[in-house]
Amino acid sequence: MHHHFTEMSNTVSVFLALLCYLLLQSLSCSGSKILVVPVDGSHWINMKIILEELHSRGHEITVLRSAKSWYIPSNSSIYTSINVPMFEDEANRDFYIKMLQGVMDRRSYPTFIRTFYQQHLLTSVIGDCHKMLARSAAKILDDAVLMKKLKDTKFDLMLTDPAFSLGIILGGYLKLPMVFNVRWINNGEGHQTVAPSPVSYVPVSGSELHDQMNFLERTKNMLHYLYSVYEQYFIINPAYSDLFQKHFSPGTDLVSLGLSADIWLFREDFVFEFPRPTMPNVVYVGGFQCKKAHPLPDDLEAFMQSSGQHGVVVMSMGTLVSALPPEITEAIAAAFAQLPQKVIWRFVGDKPSSLGNNTLLVKWLPQNDLLGHPKTRVFIAHGGTNGLYEAIYHGVPVLGLPLLFDQFDNLLRMKVRGAVRVVEARSLTKDNFLEAVKDVLENPFYRKNIQRLSQLHRDQPMPPMDTAIFWIEYVIRNKGAAHLQSAGFSLPWYSYFCLDVAVVVLALIGTSIWVSVLVCRLLCCRNGKKMKAE
Amino acid sequence: MHHHFTEMSNTVSVFLALLCYLLLQSLSCSGSKILVVPVDGSHWINMKIILEELHSRGHEITVLRSAKSWYIPSNSSIYTSINVPMFEDEANRDFYIKMLQGVMDRRSYPTFIRTFYQQHLLTSVIGDCHKMLARSAAKILDDAVLMKKLKDTKFDLMLTDPAFSLGIILGGYLKLPMVFNVRWINNGEGHQTVAPSPVSYVPVSGSELHDQMNFLERTKNMLHYLYSVYEQYFIINPAYSDLFQKHFSPGTDLVSLGLSADIWLFREDFVFEFPRPTMPNVVYVGGFQCKKAHPLPDDLEAFMQSSGQHGVVVMSMGTLVSALPPEITEAIAAAFAQLPQKVIWRFVGDKPSSLGNNTLLVKWLPQNDLLGHPKTRVFIAHGGTNGLYEAIYHGVPVLGLPLLFDQFDNLLRMKVRGAVRVVEARSLTKDNFLEAVKDVLENPFYRKNIQRLSQLHRDQPMPPMDTAIFWIEYVIRNKGAAHLQSAGFSLPWYSYFCLDVAVVVLALIGTSIWVSVLVCRLLCCRNGKKMKAE
Repeated sequence: MHHHFTEMSNTVSVFLALLCYLLLQSLSCSGSKILVVPVDGSHWINMKIILEELHSRGHEITVLRSAKSWYIPSNSSIYTSINVPMFEDEANRDFYIKMLQGVMDRRSYPTFIRTFYQQHLLTSVIGDCHKMLARSAAKILDDAVLMKKLKDTKFDLMLTDPAFSLGIILGGYLKLPMVFNVRWINNGEGHQTVAPSPVSYVPVSGSELHDQMNFLERTKNMLHYLYSVYEQYFIINPAYSDLFQKHFSPGTDLVSLGLSADIWLFREDFVFEFPRPTMPNVVYVGGFQCKKAHPLPDDLEAFMQSSGQHGVVVMSMGTLVSALPPEITEAIAAAFAQLPQKVIWRFVGDKPSSLGNNTLLVKWLPQNDLLGHPKTRVFIAHGGTNGLYEAIYHGVPVLGLPLLFDQFDNLLRMKVRGAVRVVEARSLTKDNFLEAVKDVLENPFYRKNIQRLSQLHRDQPMPPMDTAIFWIEYVIRNKGAAHLQSAGFSLPWYSYFCLDVAVVVLALIGTSIWVSVLVCRLLCCRNGKKMKAE
Repeated sequence: MHHHFTEMSNTVSVFLALLCYLLLQSLSCSGSKILVVPVDGSHWINMKIILEELHSRGHEITVLRSAKSWYIPSNSSIYTSINVPMFEDEANRDFYIKMLQGVMDRRSYPTFIRTFYQQHLLTSVIGDCHKMLARSAAKILDDAVLMKKLKDTKFDLMLTDPAFSLGIILGGYLKLPMVFNVRWINNGEGHQTVAPSPVSYVPVSGSELHDQMNFLERTKNMLHYLYSVYEQYFIINPAYSDLFQKHFSPGTDLVSLGLSADIWLFREDFVFEFPRPTMPNVVYVGGFQCKKAHPLPDDLEAFMQSSGQHGVVVMSMGTLVSALPPEITEAIAAAFAQLPQKVIWRFVGDKPSSLGNNTLLVKWLPQNDLLGHPKTRVFIAHGGTNGLYEAIYHGVPVLGLPLLFDQFDNLLRMKVRGAVRVVEARSLTKDNFLEAVKDVLENPFYRKNIQRLSQLHRDQPMPPMDTAIFWIEYVIRNKGAAHLQSAGFSLPWYSYFCLDVAVVVLALIGTSIWVSVLVCRLLCCRNGKKMKAE
């Protein structure tokens, strides 16, 4: 049943798709009721694609959203929505622009101190975020009418993105089988909690380290790890203590609820992520949102064709940070003006004065279709995973301009593989940016490497979207997946790390050595006395 | 593309199979040259099934075998064979019968001491086995004509069962991409080397522990773990030291060569194995050899039907140990004689005097077809994985009579899930055996549980055989899978466990505490002196 999902001949694939469709329809658990708690922004983009697929397979979907949601519409043909108190009610997108300035300022310190210091400084931000999240979760659990409605619906599944905590809390409270659509969670990689992550070769998120570390880098990673544990247990968990005390049985916290998830759909693929331990209930679905390019709108297609042999540079900085500081956009615009290529730039804000004739500013762009267009030469991106997987899928080299969150780590992963070049926003000038763009355009190294990644990424037993849907329906069919959950989760930390055993074994060894020494001395003494006596 | 591979309607499945076949043919890396180093006995049974599939997909297969092989024929329509010096030249099957007597004797000691002691006693056996294996590997590497022939063939892949070391050594020497078809390796689970195996919830093979351990059991597991490390580095590795010194670059040993395998096809499924950490290059294909039952030969079918409503008990003790001690076979035969069921017993040796009319002795039986027969009520087995996966696949409850190797551990896994009952050969009597058979026959608990396992085992994104073939061809297509290999493998053990980092971090903390105390004291002293002076 396995196949190279891209190389198949078109006729066969259409035929096969039709048959599989019929087959799947007959096997699906259609009519299942799925409760979805998404995260707004770019996370919604890929959740929506899964929901479309689930809807087409006959599932009934209910989405919880904020009345002030940025991207999640209240009316949809694929789901019913319920407005609930959420993060977006208290935070707005300016929040991220302020955070960006903070990060850029801090990135001028030497690496080691800078990153660690940055996390400390951000601490209050993280604590505040979790307090906001806890407040909105509390409001929902206290809303007796809403909770009765949710209970009475008898959902078959909670599908949530655990980057924000509401879905975890609500799924745990309603005791629903739970599937995570996850990239990172709480203090970083969900893996830190779900699978062992040896600090010697698994870089902690935010550390900007790769998997081959020297002694100093391993020390840095260890400090990051210790800090992340501190953050989880002393900053994040306390933000929820009132909530858990009121609504859950003693001993429950955000970590234990998260570990009760049946399946973790990780938006990762090992052409991108460093090889690392994983668990049987972790399924890798990185790049599930990628698909073949559709034809562009006529005007955009005409623009692409007008680039001639030089091709096109596509730039997009994602959904959250719409405005870079003006001195940076001016430098970028001036650099673009000197290129023989055409440029399409997803841009919101005041038009830069240095903008060249070759550059088209657009408020939104069909990113996947542009990246799959034969004229596209380079993708300039902030390094969010959605965009990077699309670049991998279509084999387009990337110039990375990381701004926030996991973007530094993401770009590092592709840089190690020679598939991207990275420029720092903080030190960006017209000249160094122009040099970097030209390098990625002209040096075949980047294209060769990303096309190798593309080939490996497409060489999977089945398309990642089908994998995702299979495991979601698996959990519905089997009412959970308890047999895939590690027994290690139920151990206290000192037992998990065998510290109790180690102490006792060492004590036994110590005692037996001590006793042997004592016996030897006694014997020696006696012999000594005897010898003296003789 | 995913589907429930058993529930599909027949028409669709035939159609789909045909299409997939066409598709796969067009994508396969047919014409690839595969070098296979199998392990004789039951391991060969499942390797052969993979080879048949690979042959049908157009690959050229060369099998290395002993001229005295027990099961591997020299002439085959699916492969070319080459006779080489192997384990079977020096050992014979009586070896296992002697080992069995030893194990049975030792199993009368209390659990903890017994198992540990047993391993110590077996030490010389394990060391001797590896010395035999090293001798035959050395003969092969020293055979210039054979080695030239193997090199000149330019194989695309080494496919081997690493339970014996020859395939690992030869694959490493010829620098071939390598795929393991593996259940256990060297001192136990291959996982002890390929993925982290926290001692707190991953039982070491041979420990007869499960994944939920109390303090004493975790201590026992730790001792087993420490002993297995000792065994690997002080008993097994030294057996090969001359060989590696002569033919490999310094620092190479059996462990490092094993870790260089591209893909590990593990004959495991998590309905059977306890959930545990795994790695991206580990693929679970447990039960790949299972298939729908074919109709039985006429005489056997007539025998099955003659059982009427009572049904049939099927008994087989595997390929290696053909003869149980006569007092045990007499007790079993006498117990069978009292059953209303019919019994089919795979039996080699002298016919027991107590044999009843309801019991049919056969030298060989079509095990998969019998287990899939509707009249089959219970499977009495030694607990090898081939038989257990067939029992899971067909949902037949098992009465286990473990004899050697991993059989005790295997049966424990299914006992924990309520799908088997276990009797000890050493304490077996007619009465307790009869009681146990009746229990498994009459108590619906066992059947219900194994049918739940069967349902979960069959609910996979694709059939495990297709998964196995996909990854074998993946390694051929991509000339290895280096990007799935952990960076942790290249670290020395003290770095892997971060001991170097821990020492330095603790030293730094210690020093800073010491300095602070010193400064405090100096200040106190001064203040004290000042106060005195005043």
